[in-house]
Amino acid sequence: MSRADRFLNACRGLPVDTTPVWIMRQAGRYLPEYRAVRAKHSFLDVCHIPELACEVTLQPLDRLGVDAAILFSDIMIPLEGMGCEVEFNPGPVMEPIRTRAAVDALRICNPEEDVPFVLDAVRMIRRELAGKVPLIGFSGAPFTLAAYMVEGKGSKDFANFKRMMFAEPDLFHDLLTKVSDTVIAYLNAQAAAGAQALQLFDTWGGVLSPADYAHYVLPHSRRILANLDKSVPVIHFVKGSGLMLDTVKHAGGDVLGLDWHIDLGDAIDILGQDVSVQGNMDPAYLFAPAELACKTATAIVEKGKKARGHVFNLGHGIMPMADADTARAVVDAVHEAGQR
Amino acid sequence: MSRADRFLNACRGLPVDTTPVWIMRQAGRYLPEYRAVRAKHSFLDVCHIPELACEVTLQPLDRLGVDAAILFSDIMIPLEGMGCEVEFNPGPVMEPIRTRAAVDALRICNPEEDVPFVLDAVRMIRRELAGKVPLIGFSGAPFTLAAYMVEGKGSKDFANFKRMMFAEPDLFHDLLTKVSDTVIAYLNAQAAAGAQALQLFDTWGGVLSPADYAHYVLPHSRRILANLDKSVPVIHFVKGSGLMLDTVKHAGGDVLGLDWHIDLGDAIDILGQDVSVQGNMDPAYLFAPAELACKTATAIVEKGKKARGHVFNLGHGIMPMADADTARAVVDAVHEAGQR
Repeated sequence: MSRADRFLNACRGLPVDTTPVWIMRQAGRYLPEYRAVRAKHSFLDVCHIPELACEVTLQPLDRLGVDAAILFSDIMIPLEGMGCEVEFNPGPVMEPIRTRAAVDALRICNPEEDVPFVLDAVRMIRRELAGKVPLIGFSGAPFTLAAYMVEGKGSKDFANFKRMMFAEPDLFHDLLTKVSDTVIAYLNAQAAAGAQALQLFDTWGGVLSPADYAHYVLPHSRRILANLDKSVPVIHFVKGSGLMLDTVKHAGGDVLGLDWHIDLGDAIDILGQDVSVQGNMDPAYLFAPAELACKTATAIVEKGKKARGHVFNLGHGIMPMADADTARAVVDAVHEAGQR
Repeated sequence: MSRADRFLNACRGLPVDTTPVWIMRQAGRYLPEYRAVRAKHSFLDVCHIPELACEVTLQPLDRLGVDAAILFSDIMIPLEGMGCEVEFNPGPVMEPIRTRAAVDALRICNPEEDVPFVLDAVRMIRRELAGKVPLIGFSGAPFTLAAYMVEGKGSKDFANFKRMMFAEPDLFHDLLTKVSDTVIAYLNAQAAAGAQALQLFDTWGGVLSPADYAHYVLPHSRRILANLDKSVPVIHFVKGSGLMLDTVKHAGGDVLGLDWHIDLGDAIDILGQDVSVQGNMDPAYLFAPAELACKTATAIVEKGKKARGHVFNLGHGIMPMADADTARAVVDAVHEAGQR
């Protein structure tokens, strides 16, 4: 039992030597060595050039001591294979898709042809990792991707997207079906190229009421999770889903990702013993004094011990203002508390 | 029993003829007559000039058929009385307050001297209403106001504010104490001027974990609610609080405002029979076909009947894209379903 095994074992509910940890967006702007790469290359270039994606993916591993690598990419990348032109300014911006004609014009992404650089990056990272830690691939969930596609950018209220959902449900479902087909192909291609776990990120699923999530989103997420490569564990993270965990659980997945709005112990009580959990420290604790951050992380590790398996993580991506030394201290505290 | 009574009665858990309804931000951009006023006057002018605030406060009452008026103003207005210069661009922007010196320099707002135009507006609106429906006054909660003060603007993650909270807790609590003193004076002055109910808006309280909310926010909100004029009912709305309702309830208040992320029936089960509830339809339903919006509203009214008292509202402010005719249809549907 070693660093190489604990993440995958926790995902599957198998024994671990200590609680594994990785950090969402661990290859990011809080790291000086990442900022050095970005000083010379655009965000999209780092996504598009396998050597650069590989370099930044590897940066945090020894710096933080985390137990998994996650492919450096962006959730919008597979939309290139659907015929969308996405720019980053700095958030994603694209021509909004709001009509039947625009939805019908979308293609299903063929990862090997449309985004081969992602699969090349996966293969290159696996080679470089040489078994040190496993590699996680990922995709945005169809609700989140379609939200960006309909709004044409990020949004506080997703007014246009929700209008389509309520007023043109057939168009909404056709869009989510096409995006789901892309997500299935994209994730399975990453697994085939060597990703050893997959995360489905639904950043925006929590903007709906529990009843609307069950009606409008769940069928699509469930279809995706039923059609993914069964040889790799899958993490399903729906931010803001603490009040509908029983519903989200029905979508499937080996691990449910949790944000910090729910007490981890309460979440485990709701979810039971047939899934593992991932999470769930407020990312803002990485601005706190290291002692307070480590104390908070340790309490989460203790709560996580009653789960089938627990992967420690933040409840959302690490923020640019985060302190890398505090992050390292938290990783060490998790490993120490997890052994006891 | 009439339109004039049902809102206040529901707040207090007294009998009503039907479920009362008002809509957060009901005087707003979705109304052509509001846009006509704003075409001639800036947002701050409408807040600062009692005749204009009165005019737009009254606009939605007969148009929508709602059972209460809410003072037109902005949560940032009392900060003028603390020595802050706030501009709207279009969201609030101000010089960030992040140091001990900046916190110490803040004054406590004296509403009669610093923001007399708000109290003049309250008196004018009461005269114009002539008892038709009650008038609700309001204030931002200290956590939400301090969030804007520390960030200097809106934020997605409140990184600077949370950093102060975790790393400089004494400074954080001193800031919240000063803002709380302002909020107490400001709300009590509105009640003295004629506001018949008060709402404390905590738009951002839900960005914390339940444990952090209890530790960092609850003592301040509880102190405010304990020090408000007991002759008027108080609505406490913490957006995103569905996973910590038992904690929020301990802050006090006659009515707990709820967003749409929690099923209303579940919320009433958690809260019990010693408070009333307000909410909780997703504002995006006002883009839906009227039939779907009314069906959704009717289901919420039925769930609300097991509460001590239920005030129908959206789960957050009405959005600019909302359809006023759909809003009117929803109000009528609430009144019809509430009678049964």
